[in-house]
Amino acid sequence: MEMTFRWYGQDDPVKIEYIRQIPGMKGIVTAIYDIPVGEVWPLEKIMELKESVEKHGLELSVIESVPVHEDIKLGLPTRDKYIANYCETIRNLSKAGIKTICYNFMPVFDWTRSDLEYELEDGSTCLIYDEATVAKMDPALGELELPGWDTSYGEGGLGALLDQYKDIDEEKLWANLEYFIKGIMPTAEEEEVKMAIHPDDPPWGIFGLPRIITNFENLDRFLNLYDSHYNGVTLCTGSLGCTKTNDVVKMIKHFGGERNRIHFAHLRNVLITGDSSFNEVAHLSEAGSLDFHAIVKAYLDYNFDGPYRPDHGRMIWGETGRPGYGLYDRALGAVYVNGLKEAILKENSLKSECEESLLEGASVQG
Amino acid sequence: MEMTFRWYGQDDPVKIEYIRQIPGMKGIVTAIYDIPVGEVWPLEKIMELKESVEKHGLELSVIESVPVHEDIKLGLPTRDKYIANYCETIRNLSKAGIKTICYNFMPVFDWTRSDLEYELEDGSTCLIYDEATVAKMDPALGELELPGWDTSYGEGGLGALLDQYKDIDEEKLWANLEYFIKGIMPTAEEEEVKMAIHPDDPPWGIFGLPRIITNFENLDRFLNLYDSHYNGVTLCTGSLGCTKTNDVVKMIKHFGGERNRIHFAHLRNVLITGDSSFNEVAHLSEAGSLDFHAIVKAYLDYNFDGPYRPDHGRMIWGETGRPGYGLYDRALGAVYVNGLKEAILKENSLKSECEESLLEGASVQG
Repeated sequence: MEMTFRWYGQDDPVKIEYIRQIPGMKGIVTAIYDIPVGEVWPLEKIMELKESVEKHGLELSVIESVPVHEDIKLGLPTRDKYIANYCETIRNLSKAGIKTICYNFMPVFDWTRSDLEYELEDGSTCLIYDEATVAKMDPALGELELPGWDTSYGEGGLGALLDQYKDIDEEKLWANLEYFIKGIMPTAEEEEVKMAIHPDDPPWGIFGLPRIITNFENLDRFLNLYDSHYNGVTLCTGSLGCTKTNDVVKMIKHFGGERNRIHFAHLRNVLITGDSSFNEVAHLSEAGSLDFHAIVKAYLDYNFDGPYRPDHGRMIWGETGRPGYGLYDRALGAVYVNGLKEAILKENSLKSECEESLLEGASVQG
Repeated sequence: MEMTFRWYGQDDPVKIEYIRQIPGMKGIVTAIYDIPVGEVWPLEKIMELKESVEKHGLELSVIESVPVHEDIKLGLPTRDKYIANYCETIRNLSKAGIKTICYNFMPVFDWTRSDLEYELEDGSTCLIYDEATVAKMDPALGELELPGWDTSYGEGGLGALLDQYKDIDEEKLWANLEYFIKGIMPTAEEEEVKMAIHPDDPPWGIFGLPRIITNFENLDRFLNLYDSHYNGVTLCTGSLGCTKTNDVVKMIKHFGGERNRIHFAHLRNVLITGDSSFNEVAHLSEAGSLDFHAIVKAYLDYNFDGPYRPDHGRMIWGETGRPGYGLYDRALGAVYVNGLKEAILKENSLKSECEESLLEGASVQG
């Protein structure tokens, strides 16, 4: 498990110099943000980004994300051009030595919350999703705009885009995803680039739009669309774990331990507050609904050697900035995982010794 | 193990509101700083301090420190008055419900370092002790003044005080410590207040002054001065662990596990850089010379239920303030220990299950 941290580049209020001071930090997860969705990422811009990371003694470990053009999700004829461009971007990233790409296939909206500054008992604030509040929202009215969303909807605007999705149900979205995957995977395989789809967040349909990367069965279906090691997932405990119907530890054991298709791990805790409601709390297990010990153990049990990063944190200590992406609480999450990792590995080593001596004792007695 | 955090009161640049936002934080370690050394701490001032902590949802867990007057360490005739005052302070703290007191018995100087802003490779700064640098220093010339030091030397100044210590060798200091302990312990026992002496930092004589709370043998000798549960120690891994001749894990097992005399735990890592030189690095085991997993495990193995706190941190993320006592790196230390604790406890529980099933299997085979 290689510890990484998401950094939004030179404009991020979180300085990369500060990220490096987090004990155990190895790599950066970032992207190029000023290239319109669908266009090829030029090699020189990629090299520039890479150097901006490496000069601080960190590795550029993962690109999160190379966004997928809406025309691909909609299955429009123009998709072939965008898929060709996507392949070209994969090739350029590979040339720069970047071998893991995170992306998602959520129609129109990225991660969605009902409140970005919900105040917790200790005065910190966090992102929450309240089902009843979201039910009353209509994004077409411009009532809601979240920092993760791409708002370059083109000429027709958001309303026109939502209209285009009227005929796209889950099965049509699956077909469009399959077309995309079959379009890019030969290139990814050739370039040995691990593609890691991010689950939908939250993992259920919103605003009448379908979402499909949502649970065990669908992740399984996704991996079977194209059977290649390079066709993998970003296992996000926060996205998948915000509903009791998902068992993220079981997912790590299966999709990681058994199938070795988890290429990137997002570690985030959530407190489930209703069937489809949750608060993003501190990473500490006792603060939320997820067992971080079991999660980290599931990765270590199969010697996961890929990158992971602490995901969304609360806003603490008066920090302001990009919701979910402050420095402080994410850094606390990172070093909490340092403690879990160290203890699990050292305890396992002690346990093996103990088991050996017990078995020896038993065989002597036997 | 109850997590606490040192807070220097209202004047501390670290806000208590922020301390509370550290996941798992339970208590505060503090003191009254405006009472001259040797005077009685009035109950009303103690209550005021306690309320200033409790109104933030935290417990006032430990007083660190009630300082010991130099006349006691010097064994002057005036010491009886100061010991009577110390007993009165113990009684008042007990009345307020505060049952753990940390103190030290270092002549003249408290913790000592050669540099408070040594720059590490990642741009953070830390406290270091370099033997060669300290050897060249003469505090009587006013060349060195550290934030932990009490500089109210009285009329004669530092030179006069150092002169008074000329005849105090280690054995005389032991005799004066014994006199003090025998003077205060009956009160501490009566009040059920745990007295927790802090080891000398660094654990060797400096500037020609003797230091005696320095190693396993001397801690043992100290506890035997007065055989009571209430006569205990603050086990500081950083102070004791900065020399390879001290095995802090062995100390925790013996003075804690076997004798139950550790009343307060300070968790700090150090990188030993010479026989008597060290840097105060991040808490993470791999950053320094101490094995934090083994340390935390040693406490959990005997179900230590007392307070602990992350000790001195680096200065990171541009923070300024009291050297060693910034918010950020100490908070990282605190949550790293959260991870260690959680994993050790949960692994132990899994291990017991495994051992049971192995033993059952063995008995069936046998």
